[in-house]
Amino acid sequence: MTNFKITLEYDGTNYHGWQRQKNTDQTIQQKVEDALSLLNKSKVTVYGAGRTDSGVHARGQVASFKLNIPLPAERLPAALNSELPSDIICHQAKEVESSFHARYDAQGKKYCYRLANNRYPSVFNRRYVYNIYRELDIEKMKQNLADFKGSHDFSAFEASGSEIDNSVREIREITFEKVSPLSPAKGPEYRLLVRGDGFLYNMVRIIAGTLIEVGLGKLETRYSEIIASKDRRRAGFTAPARGLTLLEVYY
Amino acid sequence: MTNFKITLEYDGTNYHGWQRQKNTDQTIQQKVEDALSLLNKSKVTVYGAGRTDSGVHARGQVASFKLNIPLPAERLPAALNSELPSDIICHQAKEVESSFHARYDAQGKKYCYRLANNRYPSVFNRRYVYNIYRELDIEKMKQNLADFKGSHDFSAFEASGSEIDNSVREIREITFEKVSPLSPAKGPEYRLLVRGDGFLYNMVRIIAGTLIEVGLGKLETRYSEIIASKDRRRAGFTAPARGLTLLEVYY
Repeated sequence: MTNFKITLEYDGTNYHGWQRQKNTDQTIQQKVEDALSLLNKSKVTVYGAGRTDSGVHARGQVASFKLNIPLPAERLPAALNSELPSDIICHQAKEVESSFHARYDAQGKKYCYRLANNRYPSVFNRRYVYNIYRELDIEKMKQNLADFKGSHDFSAFEASGSEIDNSVREIREITFEKVSPLSPAKGPEYRLLVRGDGFLYNMVRIIAGTLIEVGLGKLETRYSEIIASKDRRRAGFTAPARGLTLLEVYY
Repeated sequence: MTNFKITLEYDGTNYHGWQRQKNTDQTIQQKVEDALSLLNKSKVTVYGAGRTDSGVHARGQVASFKLNIPLPAERLPAALNSELPSDIICHQAKEVESSFHARYDAQGKKYCYRLANNRYPSVFNRRYVYNIYRELDIEKMKQNLADFKGSHDFSAFEASGSEIDNSVREIREITFEKVSPLSPAKGPEYRLLVRGDGFLYNMVRIIAGTLIEVGLGKLETRYSEIIASKDRRRAGFTAPARGLTLLEVYY
């Protein structure tokens, strides 16, 4: 048995998230397991670094699994891609120690939330960018972002009903970037980039929703107060899944 | 009758190009005419600035047409978008003089050809970016680009069999830009931007194909010689439609 670590890119639009489910085979984990099981000629279980939600995308999801056929790592991506649907691609593969586990060994992750502020969404990226029709105050959205940095109890930014004992997470980097549009008729794209040791359920989407409500004038940029309150009701809404992409997993 | 000028964005992947055809209704012109004819309650003929080919995209295509219903220009995009397929969007509309014609009055156009050089294409933009698997010499591709600038007989960069009397066109701007990738696992995207008074059939795709052959070491960057030869066989191949986007039309 050889243990492999792979990097995956996927368009999450047509999937019910990463995690295998009983009532549907439209999950990323299921598609990757099905493809690998075909190659391996026996059932393969795949462990993903992050269990991305329904509609969430990935550019650098990491997964690990064991195969009992002798397949060199450099040939694995092409073999796997030939069995995967066209909206899931394996970019890299390498052999790792048998103890390696994509989820338990992850030291951190980086996510991107993509926003636009146009009258109409773009036909090219409407599945990957959340377009807000009403005018956003972008300068205000960029204020006090550093409040999120460091180790905090992020209960205010956790989906209500989550049953996690410890809601302390460390945000190591948070930026809000502007990307020039290719279309002369369009405004720029905005990207919220967040890197941390781990994230609570819906945490990045709630941070994005909070920034959006600030941009719409519904909330003040007093992020430290919102964090300190540990009250989900003080933060903004959960921004739609389609704007979120898992960029990278650190080991 | 009021004459309108509109700006359209479309994903050309699923269409047989702009121009209306007898054997299919999957053309952009047909879809826009169908939608406008519904609003107008009688047949509308739409004139596009550029007859984009099958699979070619647009971010700033311009079209003109006359309506006999009293519809204010500011309400036209929303009304039209409610009848259009989701891969065609009207961004802007304004009333223009009755003599305005999107095609005959166009003074110039700007196109973008998008390239990537990765082992595997990206699931996010494989329909808009032409990915080349073999390694490209990017520095070489950027050399002598200015040779294309100015007024030249571009017969060498015209699809063979074209029946146009005058193959002289003026290229006013040509650049080759690098755009940083969002994915850490990916190389940058490259964008060939070309602005000119007009373009011969397949001209931008042949320029792109010529640059690609230079990047692959198959051709030398002696563009002035290739142009001067007026020989289609001296230039590179016609790069695939999916990499091409009509960005803007000038009046």
